Amino acid sequence: MPKNKSGTSKTLKNQAGEILRSPCPVACALDLCGDRWTLLVIRDLLLGRSRFKDFTASPEGIPTNILSDRLDRLLRHGIAEQFPVEDGSQRMAYRLTDKGRALGPVLQAMRDWGLKWETSTKALLR
Amino acid sequence: MPKNKSGTSKTLKNQAGEILRSPCPVACALDLCGDRWTLLVIRDLLLGRSRFKDFTASPEGIPTNILSDRLDRLLRHGIAEQFPVEDGSQRMAYRLTDKGRALGPVLQAMRDWGLKWETSTKALLR
Repeated sequence: MPKNKSGTSKTLKNQAGEILRSPCPVACALDLCGDRWTLLVIRDLLLGRSRFKDFTASPEGIPTNILSDRLDRLLRHGIAEQFPVEDGSQRMAYRLTDKGRALGPVLQAMRDWGLKWETSTKALLR
Repeated sequence: MPKNKSGTSKTLKNQAGEILRSPCPVACALDLCGDRWTLLVIRDLLLGRSRFKDFTASPEGIPTNILSDRLDRLLRHGIAEQFPVEDGSQRMAYRLTDKGRALGPVLQAMRDWGLKWETSTKALLR
């Protein structure tokens, strides 16, 4: 844990009760989804994918242990929630909460940047 | 390297010649800046900070080895560039290229999301 240089004596925590690195909302967002995979799972959820096997079928081939970890983290932070699949199987699926859907503009901005500056790319997300 | 499941036989590469995980521009953006630190360095550059010591002075306390690695990566991908500091010291400083400044909307979207959904946060970036 890096030393808090913000000069505030109060320990700041996020909504899940974890200590924040700084009061910066960008740093806070990166603590939750600043890695190579989490925003891809959120992309898939925005595309309407909901089941574990749907996420593993995406072209990036997310490893199942990483997927489990990221889904757990999204649940813990109130970004996604579970609901029962209506196929009589008692399996659970995932969907975004309001807090999770609100990450849409972050993904759209990344998509627009990638499309403009990395010309080999092609949008999955409309 | 996960198996390419996109069904395309052509190997896609980014502008720096690295193999892409998928054609998705979000995945491509995350390959470049999907970690806890890179977008904070870009935040600092957007705020006009330019020297190594400026970045280390930010409240998150980025470790110097991580900062060196991230600055090298930003240079390699044409997101930042170096320029000589005008203090007679022959030191180099960093600034964003057009490609780097174009990440502004990604950071603004993260800032807006953090401010709305993580109420302990406070914006550094206007």
